[in-house]
Amino acid sequence: MDNFVFCNPTKIIFGRGMENTVGQEAAAYGKKVLLHFGGASAEKSGLLGRVRASLKSAGVEWVELGGVKANPSVSLVRKGIELCRKEKVDLILAVGGGSVIDSAKAIGIGVPYSGDVWDFYARKAQPKTTLPVGTILTIPAAGSESSNGSVITNEELKLKRSCDTDVIYPRFSILNPELAFTLPDNQIVNGIADIMAHLMERYFTNVRHVEVTDRLIEGDLRTVIETAPKLKANRQDYDAWSQLMWAGTIAHNNLLNTGRIGDWASHDIEHELSGMYDIAHGAGLSIVFPAWMKYVYKHDVARFCQFATRVWGIEANFFNPEETALAGIAALERFWKGLGLPVRLSDIGIGDEKLDEMAKKCTDNDSHTTGHFIELKSADIAKIYRLAL
Amino acid sequence: MDNFVFCNPTKIIFGRGMENTVGQEAAAYGKKVLLHFGGASAEKSGLLGRVRASLKSAGVEWVELGGVKANPSVSLVRKGIELCRKEKVDLILAVGGGSVIDSAKAIGIGVPYSGDVWDFYARKAQPKTTLPVGTILTIPAAGSESSNGSVITNEELKLKRSCDTDVIYPRFSILNPELAFTLPDNQIVNGIADIMAHLMERYFTNVRHVEVTDRLIEGDLRTVIETAPKLKANRQDYDAWSQLMWAGTIAHNNLLNTGRIGDWASHDIEHELSGMYDIAHGAGLSIVFPAWMKYVYKHDVARFCQFATRVWGIEANFFNPEETALAGIAALERFWKGLGLPVRLSDIGIGDEKLDEMAKKCTDNDSHTTGHFIELKSADIAKIYRLAL
Repeated sequence: MDNFVFCNPTKIIFGRGMENTVGQEAAAYGKKVLLHFGGASAEKSGLLGRVRASLKSAGVEWVELGGVKANPSVSLVRKGIELCRKEKVDLILAVGGGSVIDSAKAIGIGVPYSGDVWDFYARKAQPKTTLPVGTILTIPAAGSESSNGSVITNEELKLKRSCDTDVIYPRFSILNPELAFTLPDNQIVNGIADIMAHLMERYFTNVRHVEVTDRLIEGDLRTVIETAPKLKANRQDYDAWSQLMWAGTIAHNNLLNTGRIGDWASHDIEHELSGMYDIAHGAGLSIVFPAWMKYVYKHDVARFCQFATRVWGIEANFFNPEETALAGIAALERFWKGLGLPVRLSDIGIGDEKLDEMAKKCTDNDSHTTGHFIELKSADIAKIYRLAL
Repeated sequence: MDNFVFCNPTKIIFGRGMENTVGQEAAAYGKKVLLHFGGASAEKSGLLGRVRASLKSAGVEWVELGGVKANPSVSLVRKGIELCRKEKVDLILAVGGGSVIDSAKAIGIGVPYSGDVWDFYARKAQPKTTLPVGTILTIPAAGSESSNGSVITNEELKLKRSCDTDVIYPRFSILNPELAFTLPDNQIVNGIADIMAHLMERYFTNVRHVEVTDRLIEGDLRTVIETAPKLKANRQDYDAWSQLMWAGTIAHNNLLNTGRIGDWASHDIEHELSGMYDIAHGAGLSIVFPAWMKYVYKHDVARFCQFATRVWGIEANFFNPEETALAGIAALERFWKGLGLPVRLSDIGIGDEKLDEMAKKCTDNDSHTTGHFIELKSADIAKIYRLAL
């Protein structure tokens, strides 16, 4: 186990109707809030109305900035920064899924910074402080509600990049599973893929003696695997949503990262895909992750066997461990396919035209590698894309 | 799953040599520290010397108060409170196990309070604020290094009582598994019993749909079960200690409590035992817990079957689930016995003389019940003690 420092300060407020307490939470941070959200669904469902009512009754003023899209754009972030400065905002309140929250985090670190916010994503600068961010989560998926990361897309450069810093853990996050009842099928399954990917990125490590976090990751994964079919059967299953929502937060709040180094190549490889084709992150992951696994499993067959037996309940073949390892990968692929997720590039109509270009972008023309389990060069990444064709 | 609010702000600093960073951590809270510890072992091992050197090099002054014993006494707490007031201390630094940390927490809430600190433990008052507490953990067991609880013994009243409030989460805790290398056998196994008890108290709940925390608790328990024999074989096994230490903190930092109501009867029943006989808490738990299980398992055979199969790997007998439930309890008892822990009152020379007296004390003469899985009256508790004879 590696040495580590861990402190996740996000206050989680979980349960039915909890969004109605947001006014009093927000009031602790000041008098004026930027209410940040995505499309029409939060308005239509009445959620934004309840949020405004709660802010009002707590004596908190607000300005609004909607329009966040999947793969949130740096141009909207820049607008948000200007607005916060002009209106002297004290807290950014993100109402939505990971895209809205990531956008809010980017605005938060951008406001006190004198340069352009993209500097943080281009790794030209490190944020030192932030305007506080609170969230009301509507999509269990990205884990951004209690993570130290934010992913933003630069539309002009066609780049999707992350900024990871403990400064941007949200101060509070309100998780009401009921808010997910109206999600469309594709967002449900994309979210499930994203949560599972967060767990598996952490799982595949070269660090030895990580038994406790192995077990916790496996437990969280099994919960997601058992819960997913229930949500396909009944989208209003509060009990199932509550498991998925909490499992999704735990998957990415960095507790399961303690003492180990995750891989994260699949996320990087996927970011090129969704940066290029504007597909959903979860759908990209369900294509990339099995291909990555097939490319790397020989590096640590024992770990893949453990994954197969403990997570998927596959009986080990001790005479042929590779068979067990591959059975685990096949089980994952079958599970995702059963949920209606794409598991091949061809499933979403992507051919081999830009695979080499994306592979090069992913490593900035081989100026660096990606992934920790195995450090991948652009040639490796191109092979992984081809395994996913 | 129940609604909940969860925020654990303790900064965990984990790994080899990390105690040497304590000076800079402490300096963030002020200029003067109360260095609080137990007996001679922390001095003899050189740990206190390293702590003093680190404080000195960070320009932090300190006063010292040693002498904390197992089942820490309110009289020493009162001394600590006086000392902190007189010396204008900014931070209490606990160097030791759960007893030292609980004592430090009690001093922390006592300093700003105008009444007597026992009020908090007698539930006559609730702490509103505290002097900050930091810790350097030497015994994986109590979980106090990242918990919101403190247990103190009133020697005159022969009462052991807890105070639970989010105010007293330590600000930081330094966990270096090497510091546990010199622990004697009995402290190692008592710690293991305590950690497992924390997990099982949370596990046995009446709340439905707690799949994710069930899985996490089971994973943490399995890690402890697999790790314990390694420590019996080699007390200097860093990898094993690192699993146990981190598993022990996670067992009690309230994450595994989210959305569910734990039982805690066994802890209450044990507190009477160790309050009366001054035995180690872990040894008391290894006697009480199996007896409690035998008394209550029929209340939810399915949960005990899940415990047996998932935690102990017992094959289910679907035609006779009670057999499976009892096999899980037997496995726990056998495991603890194999570690050298007592599992009967007779193992530590306690007879039936005071069982009824303790049972009555535990419920303050039946003015309240104890436990949530089943609410126990003094007559129930007396029966549990007798099952443990």
